[in-house]
Amino acid sequence: MTVYLVGAGPGAPDLLTLRAARLLEQADIVFYDALVHPDTIALAARAQKVAVGKRCGKHSTVQQFINKRLVDAAKRYPVVVRLKGGDPMMFGRAQEEIAALEEAGVECEVVPGITAALAAAAAIKTSLTQRGSARTITFATPRVGATEPDSTWARGLAAADAGAIYMGVGEAALIAQTLIASGKPPGLPVAIVESASLPEQRVRYTTLADLPNFADASVAGPATATPAIPSAQAITQACDTRIAPWRAM
Amino acid sequence: MTVYLVGAGPGAPDLLTLRAARLLEQADIVFYDALVHPDTIALAARAQKVAVGKRCGKHSTVQQFINKRLVDAAKRYPVVVRLKGGDPMMFGRAQEEIAALEEAGVECEVVPGITAALAAAAAIKTSLTQRGSARTITFATPRVGATEPDSTWARGLAAADAGAIYMGVGEAALIAQTLIASGKPPGLPVAIVESASLPEQRVRYTTLADLPNFADASVAGPATATPAIPSAQAITQACDTRIAPWRAM
Repeated sequence: MTVYLVGAGPGAPDLLTLRAARLLEQADIVFYDALVHPDTIALAARAQKVAVGKRCGKHSTVQQFINKRLVDAAKRYPVVVRLKGGDPMMFGRAQEEIAALEEAGVECEVVPGITAALAAAAAIKTSLTQRGSARTITFATPRVGATEPDSTWARGLAAADAGAIYMGVGEAALIAQTLIASGKPPGLPVAIVESASLPEQRVRYTTLADLPNFADASVAGPATATPAIPSAQAITQACDTRIAPWRAM
Repeated sequence: MTVYLVGAGPGAPDLLTLRAARLLEQADIVFYDALVHPDTIALAARAQKVAVGKRCGKHSTVQQFINKRLVDAAKRYPVVVRLKGGDPMMFGRAQEEIAALEEAGVECEVVPGITAALAAAAAIKTSLTQRGSARTITFATPRVGATEPDSTWARGLAAADAGAIYMGVGEAALIAQTLIASGKPPGLPVAIVESASLPEQRVRYTTLADLPNFADASVAGPATATPAIPSAQAITQACDTRIAPWRAM
């Protein structure tokens, strides 16, 4: 009678937490996102496994229907796991599921996971904060739904010492243009990290002005070529001592 | 001959990653922060264990000395683990250790961990991002070393849709005053999360204007009363649908 919203981490199955692994082993039913690694899902040996990821393409499931399935499952099974890529509370739409569960009087618990930007930082061996020079880091997405109000996503990034952009693939021109207009220098160092933590991980370094060229290439590359395998598509704009710090303007 | 900079997570031993647990089991020597849980350190059954945490109080070890010990250990042991609270790349001073290791020609690898703000978000069941209303989240600390330049930490927070403040205990008056001066409303909802993910976890809700009263109490409370036990002292200023969203001003 508890629904666990569980973070599966950035991609690599061994970047799952011990708690998440135990809950998967105990689960009666698991609703999982398309980006979760098959080996992670396989830990739920005795559970019924239901794909509900919005990134399946054709098989996408609307949020409201996911909410309803979680509530229904909670009435039938003792341990329900909702497995999400990364951390549930970072770009994971967890709030909508939490609200639906609370409204239905269903107990829920959140198990945090490694969010993509931290795996990206590990990949480029670049700390997102640095003593004396980077005390603020902003995680943002330029992705806005068709029916949603305009976003001021660039402001939070422009004012911070370092930044990481989620779901930036396909938005490279917009990102470069908006951040330069917000006052970031065209020569700002940018790291593009694809499939962070996975064997196919790819890291490239460029500048804000040149980002569109690099990122457009990646859209046709492994990031979309392997849609069934998790792909932490964070474009991390890191404060890198080796390439020069991103400082607040 | 590899030094692993490993995130121990926010406090609860089972919020460690599977990879971190395996590395601790294989480790020949472990250098650990004071805030890491004893049960986590105990996973390193065959390793020599060395406390180097800066929060030990009297037994604090300067960063340069830690760097030197890591380099020396790498020459003597096959598997060296540097275990840090939370995630190494978030307020963990990892860059200084990475730079020292690279300079000495020592291989190093970063294993990400759950950072405190994500555990705090799980504790208050409040997503740090929310579709349509919160697309940017800034992590910041107002803590500035005596010899360090002034920080513009409040700017990144003021421009973001949601924020989380690390190492904010003892800085409550400064935080409230600076963020209100930056344009945040005095009535902005604030959640104070102490010892996130631990049995002694404590969550309180207040407003930006009232923050000093709440947080000052916590300074004399469990957060400092149990310095040997990990304490995720993140003051999370969350975008909370239940208490009202923090929107960019």
